[in-house]
Amino acid sequence: MHIPATLVRGGTSKCWLFSQVHVPTDRSALEKLLVAAYGSTDPVELDGVGGATPTTSKAAVVGVSPAPGVDVDYLFAQIGIGTGTIEWTSNCGNCATGIALYAVAKGLVPISGDRTRVVMRNSNTGAVMEGVVDTTGGVVHHFGDQTVPGTRAGGVAVGLTFLSPAGSTTGSLLPTGRAAEELRLGTAEPHQVTMVDAGAPVVLVDARGAGRSGAESLEQVRADVPWLRAVRHAAAPLMGLLTPGQEPGDAVPKVGLVGPPVPYTTTLGEPVAAEDYDVSVRMLTMNAPHPAIGLTSAVAVAAAGLLKDTVVSRAAGGPTGEWLRLGTPAGVVAVRCSDPRDGVPDRVTVQRAARLLADARIYVPESGARKAA
Amino acid sequence: MHIPATLVRGGTSKCWLFSQVHVPTDRSALEKLLVAAYGSTDPVELDGVGGATPTTSKAAVVGVSPAPGVDVDYLFAQIGIGTGTIEWTSNCGNCATGIALYAVAKGLVPISGDRTRVVMRNSNTGAVMEGVVDTTGGVVHHFGDQTVPGTRAGGVAVGLTFLSPAGSTTGSLLPTGRAAEELRLGTAEPHQVTMVDAGAPVVLVDARGAGRSGAESLEQVRADVPWLRAVRHAAAPLMGLLTPGQEPGDAVPKVGLVGPPVPYTTTLGEPVAAEDYDVSVRMLTMNAPHPAIGLTSAVAVAAAGLLKDTVVSRAAGGPTGEWLRLGTPAGVVAVRCSDPRDGVPDRVTVQRAARLLADARIYVPESGARKAA
Repeated sequence: MHIPATLVRGGTSKCWLFSQVHVPTDRSALEKLLVAAYGSTDPVELDGVGGATPTTSKAAVVGVSPAPGVDVDYLFAQIGIGTGTIEWTSNCGNCATGIALYAVAKGLVPISGDRTRVVMRNSNTGAVMEGVVDTTGGVVHHFGDQTVPGTRAGGVAVGLTFLSPAGSTTGSLLPTGRAAEELRLGTAEPHQVTMVDAGAPVVLVDARGAGRSGAESLEQVRADVPWLRAVRHAAAPLMGLLTPGQEPGDAVPKVGLVGPPVPYTTTLGEPVAAEDYDVSVRMLTMNAPHPAIGLTSAVAVAAAGLLKDTVVSRAAGGPTGEWLRLGTPAGVVAVRCSDPRDGVPDRVTVQRAARLLADARIYVPESGARKAA
Repeated sequence: MHIPATLVRGGTSKCWLFSQVHVPTDRSALEKLLVAAYGSTDPVELDGVGGATPTTSKAAVVGVSPAPGVDVDYLFAQIGIGTGTIEWTSNCGNCATGIALYAVAKGLVPISGDRTRVVMRNSNTGAVMEGVVDTTGGVVHHFGDQTVPGTRAGGVAVGLTFLSPAGSTTGSLLPTGRAAEELRLGTAEPHQVTMVDAGAPVVLVDARGAGRSGAESLEQVRADVPWLRAVRHAAAPLMGLLTPGQEPGDAVPKVGLVGPPVPYTTTLGEPVAAEDYDVSVRMLTMNAPHPAIGLTSAVAVAAAGLLKDTVVSRAAGGPTGEWLRLGTPAGVVAVRCSDPRDGVPDRVTVQRAARLLADARIYVPESGARKAA
């Protein structure tokens, strides 16, 4: 069989987008189809369209939303690499910027002048986002000059705002009720962590307390994957992310190190001074170092920065303001928190870029499972 | 701009195929277009359709051939990853199997019963190959059950035969006139190597003499990339592959280690016994360990096996026969040498599988270079 799909780059992620009308609604049939389309039983995703890295092995199913005030719903799929399984529990902000551009380009949302607003709902988490797509001249653009840290390539400018992001998964900004606390793994010294739910549920480790800087190279972070994964697994039940008896997965909570600003060099070789940003962040994406930062994680870090005594505000030297500049391996990502209600931001915005890379018809083996057995 | 293209898997390679009628014939304009389409100025090929590994960052331009007896000509492009440049000097046998299937599927060659023969000429090297595509029932198939070592995924069976492969690049099977010789790098002990031109120009190092087995893991081969690269660069002028003043590149000659059969485990975790194959081979693809073996390299190893006193026949315990079984990291690849003339095989055949993965319209930034600057 074959199925239409569009490959988009959103910020630092690549994601194939499928129209809801072309794929099964049954989750298990959909999973089987995507696994076969991506060739994801194979660690290099050779027999399919997967990119074989966590940031290039993503998919989303997009459709017009029945909800009032929402333009499109999308179901996000983090396609496992070599596992033949899919993580359905998380959101991807970078993909959302691509979905906003796609919604305009495919006519799911009418163009309104020079900037077109697309309200999107992530079906996995319930998160609602607003994408403002550059439609200068009242037309859709396929190319542009807006860049994001992590690539020199230009794309179409998309401002992405997370609406009322606090507690969208667990019901509260601080699921444990504490700004920071000790998390003990086995018999080792405990880590100072902040568990926060804004954009996504995230556990942030105080880098200095763990003998780290938070400004490590990707190679250094790779060596820390096992214990950061243990932190994720220890935090998951404390954040109320597991049903009784359920094993922790590798998609939620997101996990990373946070430290004070120090000079470092980006993966593209550009020097960054300590005064260029406010806090250092090194996140994982699944079980690999994130080359930049997931936008949902950026929202969580920014929301935690506004609060006293979190791992973030301590690293920044005190609670942060409307703008927070995150030092990521790819460069500095600026996040804006606005419309505060009781100290919680109602809008958290990042300026991004997206591009349609290809429109395709993907050939999917009828029975991926059988052929791959 | 946008441009039609088809993503194929041929054996263990992924390759985008472009029709000659849709791309510029001017080499520099074509290079600019492909670099922009693949996002290849970036080491992760984020802003394009590249797969960011040597075996998934390939392209070919295919067209009906004007040459008598040849069905299609194709120009192969090994797209540099993070370099923004393209290697134009080599061929890719795995891609050729995908091109044979594509030629049938796109109607460039009429279907003839249950098996359709496609004669292909590689414009880069002049090599001529015959692909025999499974067209059971007189129709093109998009899916099949044929597998190759390195993936459990099935594809359409394609038998690939290299026609008169000896000396296709340099004019002779043994460009230096010797079955084996010493190659000295700096002041270190010399290596025993065989320089052979069949399918592709290849320099094969005697693994045991170099303190290796030839059955190393990919991780171990990775550690050997620097000196294997030095072997390639030292061999290039001896094989007549450089014009005066030209620096050696990383595509030709292909380079690898050859040793006697020993038990090992494939990258898919399958045990291979010493009696299951004849010689161990570990090749590079550009500057990375090849996950399996390039088919052009397989042809060269098989041709060298037929000759006395080469690195290959010594590892096999004597000159090899019609069939040679190569132990590669992905598993055993069997090569058949037939129609010998003066000890040189006129036909060298491998049984492979190919699949069309997607038909696409790729959006290419008008000025890739400017946008990426």
